Amino acid sequence: MSKTNAGNFFEDFQIGKVIEHATPRTVTEGDRAVYQSLYPTRFAVPSSAVFAAEVGLAPHPVEELIGFHIAFGKTVPDVSLNAVANLGYAELRFRRPVVPGDTLSTQSEVIGLKQNSNGKSGVVYVRSTATNQHDEIAIEWCRWVMVHKRDVDAPAPEAVVPSLKAALTVEDLLLPDGLDFTDYDFEAAGEPHRFGDYQVGEKIDHVDGVTLTDPEHMMATRLWQNTAKVHFNTEARPDGNRLIYGGHVISLARALSFNGLANAQLISAINAGSHVAPAFAGDTVYAWSEVLDKAETSAPGVGALRLRLVATKGRDTSMTLRNEEGKYADGVLLDLDYWALIPV
Amino acid sequence: MSKTNAGNFFEDFQIGKVIEHATPRTVTEGDRAVYQSLYPTRFAVPSSAVFAAEVGLAPHPVEELIGFHIAFGKTVPDVSLNAVANLGYAELRFRRPVVPGDTLSTQSEVIGLKQNSNGKSGVVYVRSTATNQHDEIAIEWCRWVMVHKRDVDAPAPEAVVPSLKAALTVEDLLLPDGLDFTDYDFEAAGEPHRFGDYQVGEKIDHVDGVTLTDPEHMMATRLWQNTAKVHFNTEARPDGNRLIYGGHVISLARALSFNGLANAQLISAINAGSHVAPAFAGDTVYAWSEVLDKAETSAPGVGALRLRLVATKGRDTSMTLRNEEGKYADGVLLDLDYWALIPV
Amino acid sequence: MSKTNAGNFFEDFQIGKVIEHATPRTVTEGDRAVYQSLYPTRFAVPSSAVFAAEVGLAPHPVEELIGFHIAFGKTVPDVSLNAVANLGYAELRFRRPVVPGDTLSTQSEVIGLKQNSNGKSGVVYVRSTATNQHDEIAIEWCRWVMVHKRDVDAPAPEAVVPSLKAALTVEDLLLPDGLDFTDYDFEAAGEPHRFGDYQVGEKIDHVDGVTLTDPEHMMATRLWQNTAKVHFNTEARPDGNRLIYGGHVISLARALSFNGLANAQLISAINAGSHVAPAFAGDTVYAWSEVLDKAETSAPGVGALRLRLVATKGRDTSMTLRNEEGKYADGVLLDLDYWALIPV
Repeated sequence: MSKTNAGNFFEDFQIGKVIEHATPRTVTEGDRAVYQSLYPTRFAVPSSAVFAAEVGLAPHPVEELIGFHIAFGKTVPDVSLNAVANLGYAELRFRRPVVPGDTLSTQSEVIGLKQNSNGKSGVVYVRSTATNQHDEIAIEWCRWVMVHKRDVDAPAPEAVVPSLKAALTVEDLLLPDGLDFTDYDFEAAGEPHRFGDYQVGEKIDHVDGVTLTDPEHMMATRLWQNTAKVHFNTEARPDGNRLIYGGHVISLARALSFNGLANAQLISAINAGSHVAPAFAGDTVYAWSEVLDKAETSAPGVGALRLRLVATKGRDTSMTLRNEEGKYADGVLLDLDYWALIPV
Repeated sequence: MSKTNAGNFFEDFQIGKVIEHATPRTVTEGDRAVYQSLYPTRFAVPSSAVFAAEVGLAPHPVEELIGFHIAFGKTVPDVSLNAVANLGYAELRFRRPVVPGDTLSTQSEVIGLKQNSNGKSGVVYVRSTATNQHDEIAIEWCRWVMVHKRDVDAPAPEAVVPSLKAALTVEDLLLPDGLDFTDYDFEAAGEPHRFGDYQVGEKIDHVDGVTLTDPEHMMATRLWQNTAKVHFNTEARPDGNRLIYGGHVISLARALSFNGLANAQLISAINAGSHVAPAFAGDTVYAWSEVLDKAETSAPGVGALRLRLVATKGRDTSMTLRNEEGKYADGVLLDLDYWALIPV
Repeated sequence: MSKTNAGNFFEDFQIGKVIEHATPRTVTEGDRAVYQSLYPTRFAVPSSAVFAAEVGLAPHPVEELIGFHIAFGKTVPDVSLNAVANLGYAELRFRRPVVPGDTLSTQSEVIGLKQNSNGKSGVVYVRSTATNQHDEIAIEWCRWVMVHKRDVDAPAPEAVVPSLKAALTVEDLLLPDGLDFTDYDFEAAGEPHRFGDYQVGEKIDHVDGVTLTDPEHMMATRLWQNTAKVHFNTEARPDGNRLIYGGHVISLARALSFNGLANAQLISAINAGSHVAPAFAGDTVYAWSEVLDKAETSAPGVGALRLRLVATKGRDTSMTLRNEEGKYADGVLLDLDYWALIPV
């Protein structure tokens, strides 16, 4: 009998099943440095322990997406190794900062199942939680993926489709203990724009672009212990290209968004995300944002912007999300809907 | 007179000569992170400080191969800068875990010399030890290399060929103080297979492959302060290719072996290693393992597997080591014989 | 109104204006590791906490150039985003070691302005200081760049050209508190050559070469939060090449200089630097040095060598700086004039 992991198929998931994902992973200052070398991030909180402490965050948190990628990477061998497609995310909340020294473990519960009409695959919904060494939840999210059946003749389970929020509200956000933007240093942070300067409907072209390379996305994806072979092995796809992990594009776009959103310091939640098109080495990625909503929070001096972050292959100064048929415009790679925290 | 290092030639080695290699190097959490970004490693002990502490290893050790590569890299300028070939290793033992904050220094003693019959080169045998800042031996190994003579007319030294063990026995292994697999968490570690599940003679195809790139192997090799120019300089070889450091293939194959050997947590010793063929950027590396021997140890809950780890260019699901003539099969890059520790 | 940073133009600078650059950045052991993976550095002080402590430097400083690149990177968005050319450096002094945990902030004061006769651009001189979290100056330097005017019809400011030293003298150097080379361990450091072994006028060919790649220089440049788009975006230049950050060549050449200058442990000051020609992926970089001056210092056992460090594309064993017309010889990439500290 094989000792290697063949991944789970659609029949392997049952409603209520809980999967403890391997392997726990300790976050270190090394992760921060490698992340800084791979993405052009300049947000002051993850960049400076002093700045972070001044807004109430000590010890020094790492970028939220470091925690997310680590937590998410653990689910790949169990949830999506046989995935036909990653269909969506919802209700992702960063519940407490991840700091060097934290050890993250992830578990997932199956909350929905729906076999496809072709009988060959089905959609699996999981709610995943990443906990630290104190059993505190650091991050939680829902995700649904389309997974192959092992046996097309296996009977379909009763369809259960969970009710997930199209978007979290500001009341759903869980702000880090102690966060206080009252004495926020805009000069150190790099831009003067605050909560009141952003209007719903406003779009911001983040100007800069980065041309992707294979070594860089592989290093990022490995750092998260994400093992999906299409990212690393040129023999895994007919075209001989390595498919770039969608999270690489998220981190890159988020870093590029500094130019215009430098004070959107913290990601508090992700409402939805679509990896619209694959990205490959040689693509030059740009980003633009749209303000979808805004609200004050209960933390002192802290407002929240709901933002759409769009990554594109090639710069689109028109910032067009969809074409006349309502489909994503050519060149759109990522459409991410998230809440960020910003000084009022 | 030149101030640069021209390396040692065969005549520069005498039996009993001790070389203190430059330069000492402090291991940090940064090394762990860069290593994780370069190799798809997921072993729970080096990944998680919590898991490591639960099996008795605190502070949190780094992967054994990090210590080895650092210790080995130091010997290159003195031992193998003028090497025609790295001929072999033997009797490598990891005597105590390397943890962030440790400063490693390496010294080598010449234990064997044998001039080749052509009079142009000779084989040098050294026993090397890497010690930490407390003068404790962390790693020790023997290695022999073929080195050019500076002057072909120099007289041959008396031939001394040391008696080295073809393989260490389980009694030769030095287990880390405090190691205890009694309460080992198989779920967190990622696979259920324990000592008793592996049979001598069993082979395991590790399934996954990684396509090599130049920037990644150069970053790894530099991290170990290994200065052999063929790894970095396209002008150093007639074919214009950078030769990949053999240790890069070892680390990659070891990481790939997680899939099927996730609980072979620690490398305790390396009996022998052959870099069968050179590897270059663009090669896709796969790995398979064979169980050569097994034995219980004196540490609670800890068994030892003697494993052959084979890296191949292209996947070989037949797991063939040698062809009908008894030579290594096409595609074999590495044949490594080592002892790993696994829960019983 | 745009929220993104368009950079400053010539008219935006006035004599005496002080710019607080974003964003503060905390240095970590992760930076040391990434740096070690990107450059073949083997100097014993930044490599070993034990060696550093033995010469009076504890906690363990990072390579001086790590501090410099971080401090310099912060000035790019404000000073040189619209630069036509980086014209020069002067009076750069490393005033105190940078250690993990330090948070660096940079500010610049405009100390000179001179519009070009074409009316389209001008030269801006700034004096920059990088301070740590205790408001102590870690690094200071002057730099001048040619910057576009936003409006060619804007009136020219009164020309002010600061008086900058062609080179610092040994009396200008500020040595780290406690530095003491009295018990310096030459064996651990890797070479026997000390202050007295170097003669003014002596040249040293550092032998080794490294072929550049795009992922590596991008990772380095991002680590310093340097955002100049020509380094990252193949669409930013007509030739489709990424221009390599000049600081990458400085760090590479400095690391290569270990071979012959292993005991030139610390960079104390940089007198001048010229990025003579652009470097691109595929170029193989070599280095040679010339001893320009030497002097003892007030610290015990510590001498200073003034060195010219030259990086070349392709190896030039003749070590020719300038051709017969007095121009830089073909292949010269970098001409850096600096003071290094070495045991007497």
